[in-house]
Amino acid sequence: MGKITAVSPLAPAQFPDLPIIDGVKFATCAAGVRYQGRTDVMLAQLAPGTAIAGTFTRSTTRAAPVLDCQAKIGGASDQGAAILVNSGNANAFTGRGGVAAVEAITTAVAAACGVPQSRVFTSSTGVIGEPLPHDRITSVLGELTKQLDAGGIAAAAKAIMTTDTFPKGATAEVIINDKPVKIAGIAKGSGMIAPDMATMLVYIFTDALVDQSALQAMVSDHTDKTFNCITVDSDTSTSDSLIMAATGASGVDATNSDVFKTALFDLMLDLAHQVVQDGEGATKFVEVSVTGAASDADAKTHALAIANSPLIKTAIAGQDPNWGRVVMAIGKSGAAADRDLLSIRFGDVEVAKDGWRSPYYSEEAAAEHMKGQNIVIGVSLGLGTGAATVWTCDLTHGYIEINADYRS
Amino acid sequence: MGKITAVSPLAPAQFPDLPIIDGVKFATCAAGVRYQGRTDVMLAQLAPGTAIAGTFTRSTTRAAPVLDCQAKIGGASDQGAAILVNSGNANAFTGRGGVAAVEAITTAVAAACGVPQSRVFTSSTGVIGEPLPHDRITSVLGELTKQLDAGGIAAAAKAIMTTDTFPKGATAEVIINDKPVKIAGIAKGSGMIAPDMATMLVYIFTDALVDQSALQAMVSDHTDKTFNCITVDSDTSTSDSLIMAATGASGVDATNSDVFKTALFDLMLDLAHQVVQDGEGATKFVEVSVTGAASDADAKTHALAIANSPLIKTAIAGQDPNWGRVVMAIGKSGAAADRDLLSIRFGDVEVAKDGWRSPYYSEEAAAEHMKGQNIVIGVSLGLGTGAATVWTCDLTHGYIEINADYRS
Repeated sequence: MGKITAVSPLAPAQFPDLPIIDGVKFATCAAGVRYQGRTDVMLAQLAPGTAIAGTFTRSTTRAAPVLDCQAKIGGASDQGAAILVNSGNANAFTGRGGVAAVEAITTAVAAACGVPQSRVFTSSTGVIGEPLPHDRITSVLGELTKQLDAGGIAAAAKAIMTTDTFPKGATAEVIINDKPVKIAGIAKGSGMIAPDMATMLVYIFTDALVDQSALQAMVSDHTDKTFNCITVDSDTSTSDSLIMAATGASGVDATNSDVFKTALFDLMLDLAHQVVQDGEGATKFVEVSVTGAASDADAKTHALAIANSPLIKTAIAGQDPNWGRVVMAIGKSGAAADRDLLSIRFGDVEVAKDGWRSPYYSEEAAAEHMKGQNIVIGVSLGLGTGAATVWTCDLTHGYIEINADYRS
Repeated sequence: MGKITAVSPLAPAQFPDLPIIDGVKFATCAAGVRYQGRTDVMLAQLAPGTAIAGTFTRSTTRAAPVLDCQAKIGGASDQGAAILVNSGNANAFTGRGGVAAVEAITTAVAAACGVPQSRVFTSSTGVIGEPLPHDRITSVLGELTKQLDAGGIAAAAKAIMTTDTFPKGATAEVIINDKPVKIAGIAKGSGMIAPDMATMLVYIFTDALVDQSALQAMVSDHTDKTFNCITVDSDTSTSDSLIMAATGASGVDATNSDVFKTALFDLMLDLAHQVVQDGEGATKFVEVSVTGAASDADAKTHALAIANSPLIKTAIAGQDPNWGRVVMAIGKSGAAADRDLLSIRFGDVEVAKDGWRSPYYSEEAAAEHMKGQNIVIGVSLGLGTGAATVWTCDLTHGYIEINADYRS
């Protein structure tokens, strides 16, 4: 853990009041995997009939639990399931020992929860390359299963934190055929955050009935425009996992519901924004919006080049409307751009137009925007209809302080 | 300019004693383009018969002087030539006004030096997006041409600096057919440094006689393995330019000389390393060497992912042998890797082998290496024979301090 323990200035005022989702119960425990004096393991038990979908990091060095989850997603949904997460140790780059640790944990969780091992999903988050002391986790399973409680999701959000300064949660309720269905999600993530998929860990639960393949399609589509559109430091985790469970306990079928799909998107975007708002050392929340690109893919390439540029992120930290660095980032991104068609705005202040400083440019107005906590960088390329929006934070002394001694 | 004005701790002990290169004269002047109280313009006049080669940034938003140079390189070499450089203003993203400024300056330099306008090469370095006050430059040309001096190269190295904390120079002498030829080069660069091509500005002079197309081939080849293999902050300048002039004044033909080619490579690598050693806020010089990749291109992709990772660069600043972050960077790079064949060393200390922590791992030995000023990260992928080496520096509070208020 880094030196900085104060809550991010960008944190929401309070953790939301997450509803009970029928069909899922939670328990947490202090297993001492690495941290002392705090909870570090969470268990979620899911009722028979739950559909599970997921999206995961594409890192070639991804962790053993990620590979295990990927192999299991899409399996039969007429049985119960369980999700077990530990913080403090990522069980990544741990060779055969890491695979054995996953095997030991999933075997024990299956026995403790009475579900098939093929329906036990695990995540580990924390330091890379240290053997996971899996016996510390299996030895608390008895305690965990005794504590299982439908109201335990807020505690679960805390147990999965690492360098996070606040727990992250979001909820939605939609009405389908006059009946309510609920969604509740939690996430953790603060550093080593970049597509794809930037998040570290996300768990979303709903009592809606959703066909597994439809659920997977929804989650995959939404991930592309939410968690894969945020970046804190351009570094991609070996453990990124999003798991969504639809228990069906409400009896309401949301498989083809647009209102459900939209509510889920909004909830995922909310959680993604909270990860950025807890970006290590962050003092500003930054939206980068690119339009007029040759394609959506080009727009995203430009937007991420801007959002990942250390020079732009430090300028934002210094409240400097240094739009020349935005020009630089567009130039280096590799995607198509015509310098002489380029326009740039900070908030509503047009700073550059058609390849030169805007005739209406006001340093004072631009500087005023940069003093705010929410910064918007808008770029219009003038080439086509491609568009993308990504979110990031500034790069401050806090990031250096946190990361120059994380492991020690 | 940033707050940090002390010389980089990685700076060479002294500026080298650069020899006179027959056929080239230098002059410098304080024109007040942006900075006060220091020289900010340099002029190099080259004798008839000089061959000029160059390599330039591939940014799509590159500056007007870069585009002008690119159009002129490769032209006839039976005439004299001139190079004019200003610091403080990059004349980048300055629209038609920027093109007009280049036109005005090259016209005036051609007249002042008695060379064709097609043989006048200019560079501008400094802030992006501000109109270049080109009259301040043209008004000092009379003074500059009066001062032209064969021994003026050290002063030229100082006049082109921006956030640099020390001037950069290197020299070589080789014997061809029992006769000596000399090479002398100067460079500037400190931030906004990343392939391609990381440098900002480099000027190299030799009295050898080299055919222009052979000179261009040598410079292009060498750039790929020197200036395009360094990174400070992953941000690519809009102004990067390397210009090499072979005056031929020695009468010695080096067109097909391997010893000349090798000496030029070593000189370019030396200058490239000096740019990294002056990386903004740098306290450590880092070599990243990747072997066993599927191809050289894959090796370079992995090496740059490591060298550009903020998490690795902050760990180095904190003297933390955090090799898990190296695993992360390899995983995210996009190039081929097999986690279970991966080995990593810090200096001579093997920290990971075959996808897990090395059985010989010693935290103390790895930590000891990290305390040094020269850090080596070695990665062996075990896939093929592809190899690449790149150089970078650590990411410190100094970088944030310098860049959070550069413009203000």
